[in-house]
Amino acid sequence: MSGTSGYDGFRAVGSRLSEAQLPHLGTHRTELLGDSLPFIHAFDKAHLVMLAEQSLITDAQARALLTAMRAMEEEGIVAARDRAGGGMHSAEHYLAAELGIDLGGRISMGRSSGDLIEVARRLTVRHHLGSVIPGVHALRRTLLDLAGEHLDTVMPGYTHGQHAQPTTLAHWALMFERALSRDSDRLVSLLDRLNLSPAGAAIMTGSDFALDRHRTAELLGFERPLENTFDAIMSHDLEMEIAATYAIAAATLTRLADDLFLWATAEFAFIELPDRFCGTSSIMPQKKNPDALEAVKSVGGQALGHLVAIVTAERGPTGFPILERRQTQDALWATGRSLTSKLGDLSAIVRDMRVETARMARSAGAHWAQVTDVASAIVAASGMDWRSAHQVVGAFVRMSIDAGAAPDAATLETLDEASRTITGKPSGLDPAGFAEAMSARAFVGRRTIYGGPAPSAVERERAQLLDRLSAAEDRERERAARIEAAAADLEAAIDTIIAG
Amino acid sequence: MSGTSGYDGFRAVGSRLSEAQLPHLGTHRTELLGDSLPFIHAFDKAHLVMLAEQSLITDAQARALLTAMRAMEEEGIVAARDRAGGGMHSAEHYLAAELGIDLGGRISMGRSSGDLIEVARRLTVRHHLGSVIPGVHALRRTLLDLAGEHLDTVMPGYTHGQHAQPTTLAHWALMFERALSRDSDRLVSLLDRLNLSPAGAAIMTGSDFALDRHRTAELLGFERPLENTFDAIMSHDLEMEIAATYAIAAATLTRLADDLFLWATAEFAFIELPDRFCGTSSIMPQKKNPDALEAVKSVGGQALGHLVAIVTAERGPTGFPILERRQTQDALWATGRSLTSKLGDLSAIVRDMRVETARMARSAGAHWAQVTDVASAIVAASGMDWRSAHQVVGAFVRMSIDAGAAPDAATLETLDEASRTITGKPSGLDPAGFAEAMSARAFVGRRTIYGGPAPSAVERERAQLLDRLSAAEDRERERAARIEAAAADLEAAIDTIIAG
Amino acid sequence: MSGTSGYDGFRAVGSRLSEAQLPHLGTHRTELLGDSLPFIHAFDKAHLVMLAEQSLITDAQARALLTAMRAMEEEGIVAARDRAGGGMHSAEHYLAAELGIDLGGRISMGRSSGDLIEVARRLTVRHHLGSVIPGVHALRRTLLDLAGEHLDTVMPGYTHGQHAQPTTLAHWALMFERALSRDSDRLVSLLDRLNLSPAGAAIMTGSDFALDRHRTAELLGFERPLENTFDAIMSHDLEMEIAATYAIAAATLTRLADDLFLWATAEFAFIELPDRFCGTSSIMPQKKNPDALEAVKSVGGQALGHLVAIVTAERGPTGFPILERRQTQDALWATGRSLTSKLGDLSAIVRDMRVETARMARSAGAHWAQVTDVASAIVAASGMDWRSAHQVVGAFVRMSIDAGAAPDAATLETLDEASRTITGKPSGLDPAGFAEAMSARAFVGRRTIYGGPAPSAVERERAQLLDRLSAAEDRERERAARIEAAAADLEAAIDTIIAG
Amino acid sequence: MSGTSGYDGFRAVGSRLSEAQLPHLGTHRTELLGDSLPFIHAFDKAHLVMLAEQSLITDAQARALLTAMRAMEEEGIVAARDRAGGGMHSAEHYLAAELGIDLGGRISMGRSSGDLIEVARRLTVRHHLGSVIPGVHALRRTLLDLAGEHLDTVMPGYTHGQHAQPTTLAHWALMFERALSRDSDRLVSLLDRLNLSPAGAAIMTGSDFALDRHRTAELLGFERPLENTFDAIMSHDLEMEIAATYAIAAATLTRLADDLFLWATAEFAFIELPDRFCGTSSIMPQKKNPDALEAVKSVGGQALGHLVAIVTAERGPTGFPILERRQTQDALWATGRSLTSKLGDLSAIVRDMRVETARMARSAGAHWAQVTDVASAIVAASGMDWRSAHQVVGAFVRMSIDAGAAPDAATLETLDEASRTITGKPSGLDPAGFAEAMSARAFVGRRTIYGGPAPSAVERERAQLLDRLSAAEDRERERAARIEAAAADLEAAIDTIIAG
Repeated sequence: MSGTSGYDGFRAVGSRLSEAQLPHLGTHRTELLGDSLPFIHAFDKAHLVMLAEQSLITDAQARALLTAMRAMEEEGIVAARDRAGGGMHSAEHYLAAELGIDLGGRISMGRSSGDLIEVARRLTVRHHLGSVIPGVHALRRTLLDLAGEHLDTVMPGYTHGQHAQPTTLAHWALMFERALSRDSDRLVSLLDRLNLSPAGAAIMTGSDFALDRHRTAELLGFERPLENTFDAIMSHDLEMEIAATYAIAAATLTRLADDLFLWATAEFAFIELPDRFCGTSSIMPQKKNPDALEAVKSVGGQALGHLVAIVTAERGPTGFPILERRQTQDALWATGRSLTSKLGDLSAIVRDMRVETARMARSAGAHWAQVTDVASAIVAASGMDWRSAHQVVGAFVRMSIDAGAAPDAATLETLDEASRTITGKPSGLDPAGFAEAMSARAFVGRRTIYGGPAPSAVERERAQLLDRLSAAEDRERERAARIEAAAADLEAAIDTIIAG
Repeated sequence: MSGTSGYDGFRAVGSRLSEAQLPHLGTHRTELLGDSLPFIHAFDKAHLVMLAEQSLITDAQARALLTAMRAMEEEGIVAARDRAGGGMHSAEHYLAAELGIDLGGRISMGRSSGDLIEVARRLTVRHHLGSVIPGVHALRRTLLDLAGEHLDTVMPGYTHGQHAQPTTLAHWALMFERALSRDSDRLVSLLDRLNLSPAGAAIMTGSDFALDRHRTAELLGFERPLENTFDAIMSHDLEMEIAATYAIAAATLTRLADDLFLWATAEFAFIELPDRFCGTSSIMPQKKNPDALEAVKSVGGQALGHLVAIVTAERGPTGFPILERRQTQDALWATGRSLTSKLGDLSAIVRDMRVETARMARSAGAHWAQVTDVASAIVAASGMDWRSAHQVVGAFVRMSIDAGAAPDAATLETLDEASRTITGKPSGLDPAGFAEAMSARAFVGRRTIYGGPAPSAVERERAQLLDRLSAAEDRERERAARIEAAAADLEAAIDTIIAG
Repeated sequence: MSGTSGYDGFRAVGSRLSEAQLPHLGTHRTELLGDSLPFIHAFDKAHLVMLAEQSLITDAQARALLTAMRAMEEEGIVAARDRAGGGMHSAEHYLAAELGIDLGGRISMGRSSGDLIEVARRLTVRHHLGSVIPGVHALRRTLLDLAGEHLDTVMPGYTHGQHAQPTTLAHWALMFERALSRDSDRLVSLLDRLNLSPAGAAIMTGSDFALDRHRTAELLGFERPLENTFDAIMSHDLEMEIAATYAIAAATLTRLADDLFLWATAEFAFIELPDRFCGTSSIMPQKKNPDALEAVKSVGGQALGHLVAIVTAERGPTGFPILERRQTQDALWATGRSLTSKLGDLSAIVRDMRVETARMARSAGAHWAQVTDVASAIVAASGMDWRSAHQVVGAFVRMSIDAGAAPDAATLETLDEASRTITGKPSGLDPAGFAEAMSARAFVGRRTIYGGPAPSAVERERAQLLDRLSAAEDRERERAARIEAAAADLEAAIDTIIAG
Repeated sequence: MSGTSGYDGFRAVGSRLSEAQLPHLGTHRTELLGDSLPFIHAFDKAHLVMLAEQSLITDAQARALLTAMRAMEEEGIVAARDRAGGGMHSAEHYLAAELGIDLGGRISMGRSSGDLIEVARRLTVRHHLGSVIPGVHALRRTLLDLAGEHLDTVMPGYTHGQHAQPTTLAHWALMFERALSRDSDRLVSLLDRLNLSPAGAAIMTGSDFALDRHRTAELLGFERPLENTFDAIMSHDLEMEIAATYAIAAATLTRLADDLFLWATAEFAFIELPDRFCGTSSIMPQKKNPDALEAVKSVGGQALGHLVAIVTAERGPTGFPILERRQTQDALWATGRSLTSKLGDLSAIVRDMRVETARMARSAGAHWAQVTDVASAIVAASGMDWRSAHQVVGAFVRMSIDAGAAPDAATLETLDEASRTITGKPSGLDPAGFAEAMSARAFVGRRTIYGGPAPSAVERERAQLLDRLSAAEDRERERAARIEAAAADLEAAIDTIIAG
């Protein structure tokens, strides 16, 4: 394309350098840009509008340049820019080829690869967060729905991989809602910090052209310009925060998938997954593999690896590592897309999985998880101190296991024997109290404490969380509307210029 | 000590287990607790007060137990608890030994290792943030002071390790103030999320004892209880957020240290460090090594390594990894302490280093960093499009270097020759315009753009940032006062109980 | 101590620097040295012997200095060196204090902190590998023993968390033996690369004193000196290799612990751990937690975190990061010690755990894992192509599950029905063939393929692996003997000098 | 394509599963295979040959199937396999479509996705190592050549970023040769461990078909089969070793690039890079950026990130994480390719960069790096103990700097004054001795110690290293020839079968 305009790009041999760069070094390649290309295009347009409004280019120049930008869109910006050699400066190349260098050579006035990259990076991540945050919200809502259906679904809780205490599936679902709400909060804080404009900072000092940084910010839907041009281009803590926030959210999703994956084993068998989320084997005809859950679990390690790569890439004095950083942005895009996809899968799985409620409930009482409350019952019945009661019950469990008795065959006699061994006295429980204390369902029912698993406590918590979620959804919908409005304003400004 | 009370701790052989745990497995060891011991002690007291207020223990029991807790403080809690066997349950052991199991055995009513660890972890990190956040604020203030003194100190900015554009030391200082202000914001968000109470969540379901979770929260200076007891104990995203927020702040400090370290080389020689931050060599008598800066730089990699360890430790279904996690908390404590120490060193170095202003200024113009504005000047003088002007200047630089001419020896003739080669016309600059365009100081002076390095722009920005910093400092001072007041309330409540 | 000799250490104010270093920067602290102190001491002695043999110090000087080194050993080197101010140069301080600077000042001739650190680091890791490698060997032997006892213990193998195919516990044990044998190989290669001497390289260029690097190497049990003095001090790839090799070995141990941890759940219940490796809970009286396995699992994440910290610490040009690196060596020591401890625990657990062989065997056939061979049987019986047979069996399993039939209730009729649906023909199996194909034990028996789980195949493999392990153990015992002999030679050389 | 054969792939609805998998889960996608596709194809062919030789398929079947495999090659395997639906089982799909399921359905006899992936992974990495190892060898040779040209090129060595001691560029080059030789050794050990065959292990237990694992291994150029089929598929330590070995090699390259990047700054200016490895800026016309070096430096962080992702992906019990792992292999391929490319660039840069030998030499003596030997000279001249001499020279340097004297203006008088201050006596040096001691070039010349920088010592070392390198190159050429011969044998075996 360069032939038609005589313009070879700013890297032309004969200007600063005397040899062409080796092709494989190609730092201007389109593939390095990935998802950010549309946002480079948007910045190109906003910058031209601002240049025109500041009279840094004439009306006629602006009209010609913006008309050509629209023509690129007609063709499709990927194709048009590839035809112009690709890369972040492909608009300049395109315009120089189509309109000559005297026109095309003006788009880069007061701008640099520095603010191009930073603006496009922020807009790309803003775009990804525009799916990730609603995806988190949707999963939270699905969990709240699940909780509503399973207030009474008793199930075992675990510590150290061993049965710990009975709880309910609703309580479990709200635990994940709470974790995801913190992920939402972190993502929203990130988006607040992100949606500030580096435009006009050029490579670090801004420009001696009379740019209007506030106007460009406005046209791109940013809240305002960043306050320091050096910082706008050369501080990269925000990129690390993106990677870290993604990695933490990925860890939450990974844990949720780990729970479901375990529950889908033959040994646990607490849930059955819909077949469409599963795969089979080329050799083992019986296989139904939880592929979708493994895909979710993959994200945790990948996001952590990307975080390490991104933090490490930034090592060195200000302005020293530059290309190191450009190599990492694709990893950010990939994690952003991947989180959106995984959030969707998890929402669908949580909604559509079959819950084996009877098996869960049976398991909750079959492995001694209820006996914390046998100790409480002894305290209540006999005034024994908690620790002695706890020790008595420990001995009771050991003696029952040694005698081959499962919880439903354990006896008050054994408990009293244990109590006499430890304290010299019987437990003080009567048969009804013992039976009540040994019920996993009753265990849950007693836990009306703030935040506990009793159905009434969970229902109360759930109602509040639904309200909070709705408010959070509203706030992000408003933000999305503001961003859309800014995009419309940009197009309107272009229309005005083109209309003359 | 167990001999005196007949109580061997809840792990006693003959209760649940039939063998003593191997000593080296010792998960109850004091050394695993590290900085968190005082906060375990505080929770012990607050829990007892709440139990008494809820009538879960009698007034007489409460009086005896809290009096003994005060006696531990007289002795020193580290010594007293070590004497009682150490570990997070050492208060129970101490009380059982001193008062008998019937009294001592009551402190664990409705409580578990789970909420002990989580409460202590949050209070410990809150304590560390109580130094880290003011440390960040202090460094920001020092940078704002430095900026105030160096509005006119011209220096080179770099990209790709090469001279890029002139800027000022004040502009550089504000860049770091801005980055650190984002670190402040992240740390403050973290502290907001952190200062919620897991107390009363026990191991995951709370308790069937009538605990008052709001009261315990209040006594410990938490804002309120966490809403879900399962989440309070088993979700660990916050720990990852602590590690990530530390790692990002450490990266900011590392970059600041990287800049200063480079500036302290013989080749750059932009600053001279006070000797007290330096070391020498056992073999090379001339050595003055920037030890303190290397110590700062160490934190970046260490914090990243800790982050990886902490995220990785949490892998697995809910409640499966437990001890994995306990092993990592010491790394959190270490980074918290280390950041405080490094922030102090950096503030002192930034305040006391000798700045070689003349050398900085000379360097700013000695390596062609000013020539972006030669291209601007051509655009302004001749109406040439930016890209062509840029290409002309590229050729001018190359031709000057080939001729052995440094910037102060470069000529308008060479520029015009370059211009004719590229565009067929001279540059359009006159000698005065050329000289002005070649001045690094003038370059800076022209950058009055929002956020730019011109002294007036920096001074305006600096005034605003001072205001914002003062406001942030005030907010954290108020929070610290609230936390102190809660501690006083706890002691007052104990006084009341003891007084009967 | 400095008072007695008038020598304040080489960092004294008034030599190169005009201020004392801030105490908290204390890079010479003993605590940074950790496990390496005895090896610093050994190098001190070997260096003095070499200096004497090269006549760089006189016989009388050597006698006095080495006698004082022996006196330090009488006192205990930790105490004596702490008394002298601690740190890696504490011998010089001690000798200067005891004998005056004219004698004490000679120990550092031709030596630097550089080779002190590098020699001590290599000797410390060599020391740790002296436990780690035998620990791996012992675990391999324990696994081979387990295999010998469980050739016929059928158990399920898993993929994607789902039952895959029947195998045996012996086959499983040999899998881990093979993985650990690769860890052995990597550790041994590492030790070969490690056991080369940096001594005499000083800080990078060696010395102009006539040192004999080969002699010092010999006295310290190194194979030979490193060939390039710059490389000996400034290349740190070996440290990364140590960390990486540890991390990979830790991952193998983590996986082994993950298997046992899962098998110890109530749901799997394939093994029962000895109580002494377990803990209980302060609130849940029934708890028997697999503490030792969690401690093993902790090592994986920690070693990975350390690896990241160690690699990251080395970032930068040659000789730029120095203290960054010193901060990381303690992590290496910790992982070395931890691996030894965990290897011991795993060997004991694998040896002493109770294997629930009947439950394992029952499980192996209870979840369709055997049906790969139903497809094989169809191929053999009817000449049907493999893929069609596989599809037939897939449908057979689905239809059986839908009908509520477990494998032991599945029928040839269902298989034939599935076959007719897919291929239009019955399966071709007769009842005896079907029954044989549905037997998990027969499945294993058919796998006499090289490396397969049939008892005869495992026994053949096991015999070979025992031979290879014995050979590996012998090689490392010989190496240990060589190192011990070198230590004895060093003491003999000292004896000779002292005896005059 | 499925239409033509009626075969829908083994995941067909109606066999094991009742719903089609969601398309985006697509674990069979070609893009997940990346560089491994040709090696899947090779295994397909070798497996068919072995099946035929074992009479598990008839001669006629073998002929038809292998003829069709050859037809795929005619078309191009990427295109042909994509047409058949892509993925690792695309040969089965292709053959079923072309020849019918009765023939096509036989290629998977006794094979599984498990050994397909493992065989292809090992062959792919073997292929990459076939470029990486020679690339390391070539860079070592280039460094040895550079050393040969610069035996006398004196330059400064650094510690803590400060001038440490003079050395030579040749000595520096051999340091990197030594580090790279250890990378070679690690890569070769890895390749030895890698080139063993998982073929025939199927998914973990091998097969009940009479497969010949030794024959398949031979046809694929493996040294022999892996000894345990469970281990062959389910142990993944080798993948971690690949990632770790790559990351360590990447760290060596990164350090080399860090040195060159620093040397290319305006402040150091020790080298000038060829323009073709550089880029320029879109805004700063003077920029010549060392793009190629930054690309090299990128690899360090990326490889470390990939290592973390790969180790983390494997967490969990044996056979539980499966898809997690498949997601990571592309990162392995990418690092393998990247290392090859970066090794090539570094070799070219080291060969073609312009070395500013005069500037290097001047710098070596301009910042007091030579004064270690002033202390040595005092020891030699006066018998003063080393430490006192060292302290004297420290004071001499400080006093000279305070007086504004650079090393070439420092005087014996100042030295004697320093000596009198510290020891009460003059230094004992005469003017000639002082001048000789202050010469950076003489410093280097005195270092004839084993491994030191004196030209004679370096030349001796260099000759040995050239011999060792040639031997290493020969060994790898022989291995490559063996692998090529195996490929030829495979084609010959196919020819024989097709010929009947």
